[in-house]
Amino acid sequence: MENYLIEEDSPGISDVPGFLVAGSACDIRNKGNSEQLDIALIYSEKPCAGAAVFTQNVVKAAPVRHGQAILKAGGPIHGIVANSGNANACTGQAGIDDTYAMARVAAEGFKKLPESFFVCSTGRIGERLPMQKVENGIRDAVERASSTPEEGRRAAAAILTSDTHSKTITVRFSHNGKKITVAGIAKGAGMIQPNMATMLAFLATDAAVEPSLLQKILSEAVRLTFNRITVDGDMSTNDTVLALANGESGVSIDESDRAGLDVFAGAVRKVCDFLAEKIVSDGEKITKVVEVLVEGAASEEDAEKVARAIGNSLLVKTSWYGNDPNWGRLADAAGYSGADFDDRKFDIYYADVPAVIAGEPCVENREKWKEIVRAKRFPITVRLNVPGGNGSFRLLATDLTEDYVRFNKSE
Amino acid sequence: MENYLIEEDSPGISDVPGFLVAGSACDIRNKGNSEQLDIALIYSEKPCAGAAVFTQNVVKAAPVRHGQAILKAGGPIHGIVANSGNANACTGQAGIDDTYAMARVAAEGFKKLPESFFVCSTGRIGERLPMQKVENGIRDAVERASSTPEEGRRAAAAILTSDTHSKTITVRFSHNGKKITVAGIAKGAGMIQPNMATMLAFLATDAAVEPSLLQKILSEAVRLTFNRITVDGDMSTNDTVLALANGESGVSIDESDRAGLDVFAGAVRKVCDFLAEKIVSDGEKITKVVEVLVEGAASEEDAEKVARAIGNSLLVKTSWYGNDPNWGRLADAAGYSGADFDDRKFDIYYADVPAVIAGEPCVENREKWKEIVRAKRFPITVRLNVPGGNGSFRLLATDLTEDYVRFNKSE
Repeated sequence: MENYLIEEDSPGISDVPGFLVAGSACDIRNKGNSEQLDIALIYSEKPCAGAAVFTQNVVKAAPVRHGQAILKAGGPIHGIVANSGNANACTGQAGIDDTYAMARVAAEGFKKLPESFFVCSTGRIGERLPMQKVENGIRDAVERASSTPEEGRRAAAAILTSDTHSKTITVRFSHNGKKITVAGIAKGAGMIQPNMATMLAFLATDAAVEPSLLQKILSEAVRLTFNRITVDGDMSTNDTVLALANGESGVSIDESDRAGLDVFAGAVRKVCDFLAEKIVSDGEKITKVVEVLVEGAASEEDAEKVARAIGNSLLVKTSWYGNDPNWGRLADAAGYSGADFDDRKFDIYYADVPAVIAGEPCVENREKWKEIVRAKRFPITVRLNVPGGNGSFRLLATDLTEDYVRFNKSE
Repeated sequence: MENYLIEEDSPGISDVPGFLVAGSACDIRNKGNSEQLDIALIYSEKPCAGAAVFTQNVVKAAPVRHGQAILKAGGPIHGIVANSGNANACTGQAGIDDTYAMARVAAEGFKKLPESFFVCSTGRIGERLPMQKVENGIRDAVERASSTPEEGRRAAAAILTSDTHSKTITVRFSHNGKKITVAGIAKGAGMIQPNMATMLAFLATDAAVEPSLLQKILSEAVRLTFNRITVDGDMSTNDTVLALANGESGVSIDESDRAGLDVFAGAVRKVCDFLAEKIVSDGEKITKVVEVLVEGAASEEDAEKVARAIGNSLLVKTSWYGNDPNWGRLADAAGYSGADFDDRKFDIYYADVPAVIAGEPCVENREKWKEIVRAKRFPITVRLNVPGGNGSFRLLATDLTEDYVRFNKSE
């Protein structure tokens, strides 16, 4: 068994040897003398292997295009500079220039190349960044950069938008007698159906990993974690998960050492899993997290269709909010999901209490369903019972509240 | 030019020669001595050609299965019996028996076969119908059945659920010196993304039309009207559009008479178009109707993807509600729709005012967008500008309000 030392709500990236971090405030939101942190910086003097998973949205923010270019170029990575309060999306060539300037100013601070810095932005779409402020903010961050827990926490706070709290985790473990650390920070809140969500997540580790292997490990972890949550079904223009590995621990992770690979991939998975759960449970104005499990589908794709149709149905989400075990709306959503099944053979369970067996309601359990749905977090299982079907999918979804509507009326 | 005499908010089906209609109250909702109408009956002594478009949901209510069977059998149709307050969906074999009993009781009243009556139900999923009440209600409707405007209006009212008002229209025109009438009634409100929506719509005409031709005309009209509206993106288990043609006018519509076919199909289209617009503008707790026009897509399918992604995005819908021309959310939804386009080449217009040209915002028009979005009904055009692409799609969508969430918390 792997032996992980897990620190939830840790200082984050500053826990990883060889990384300096900082959080600065430069008033991107134009609130006057704001003390709201809005610039995060992550830096490793040692060159890092980098891996990334970006939004699949056709409309990609400038920083996403920059990140894709950097990754393709394959050079060494030294860090990440990120801002909140403005997404730098749909800003044309000027936005691309602004992104490059962010990378350049950060890199200059450490005498590195602009192509060695990832850039991330999150916030409102369609407005130019106030570059004078941003550049000053980045310069301030370069000066502050350190490995103190305080700066670690400031960096984690600086990427937040409508999140109510920071999302951080540190996982430590030993391999061949040497210590390895994997830490991560993330932001979520709205426009969340990653694949990706307006979510950003940054992971750092002191393991030594080749870029292609790091990419493989990260992609798989993202597929099973961040890509299986939904708040409002909206996929953002800026979603990005980045991982940097600087090798500071002196431990190499490669495919020739299966045990090392497994324990490292497990740690990355734990970090992603924790941050994904944190993002969904801090979704905009939600009151509940529902784990939707679909089983017995003809394929994983079909199971996913059913889970997403349920998790994104307005009628299902509002009934959860109202503590109403309205399984009819669940059945309806499953039925229009596009997945293939027989409506006289499917089952629905609230936790382990049957609500529908073979397409017909178990009305005698009504009071039990009601009790389960009152919880802040509960599982629902939909068994499609397709002959020979073993496709399954797990989605973390949320309810939909009046406060979500009120909050998003304008921003 | 066709010369249609259009009466909006007419008595409905009672306007069509040869049809008797009725609306009865039998307290399906268990509110005690309720006077809420909940049984609608439509009857023609002359046998009718029947056509139908049903929900594509895998989870089909019992009446939908009955209707499909009747249509397949191809026998003469004499009428429709419908109830509101209970969807008779996910009710297993008992629900199928209940549907058949509804058809049987209606048919017996006129000494016809159960297989000559369509049945429709709308309301909550997963509960048995109170059949004693329902049968009494149908018998009462049989007694009341007449061609008076009063019973016409009662029938149109009896199918409503959370609708705030009846939806009716009558279109009259002449062909070869003879008068033809096409009338329709509908209900909508929630679980509305037809293809079909929990919507029911019944059309009747005194034209003589072969079933296969009537089906072709109805299917095409439904595709272009009811299937292009969305309130909440949920497709119901019960959605049904039915058309009955009894030939009472003595005018035959067939493919050998192109002019007659066109004028008749045009009237059917007008009825469907009007009822679809009525359904969306009476969507549950909405405050706005937005006409989403997508043009210049690689295909109609791609245009539809973009229109539906926009029309069903929670963030887009809440911003409309807040009078906020947040075109960034529109661009984001277009980007994740799955349609193919270049995010440096698309345009967005509010009415005829550009908001985005070639992927970049026209910020100088901000005040104009705001003014447009304040209206109760406004158009948005998204031009994808795919080279050589002429795929287009028009979707009527609504905003999303706090009241929708409050209303659907429980039902």
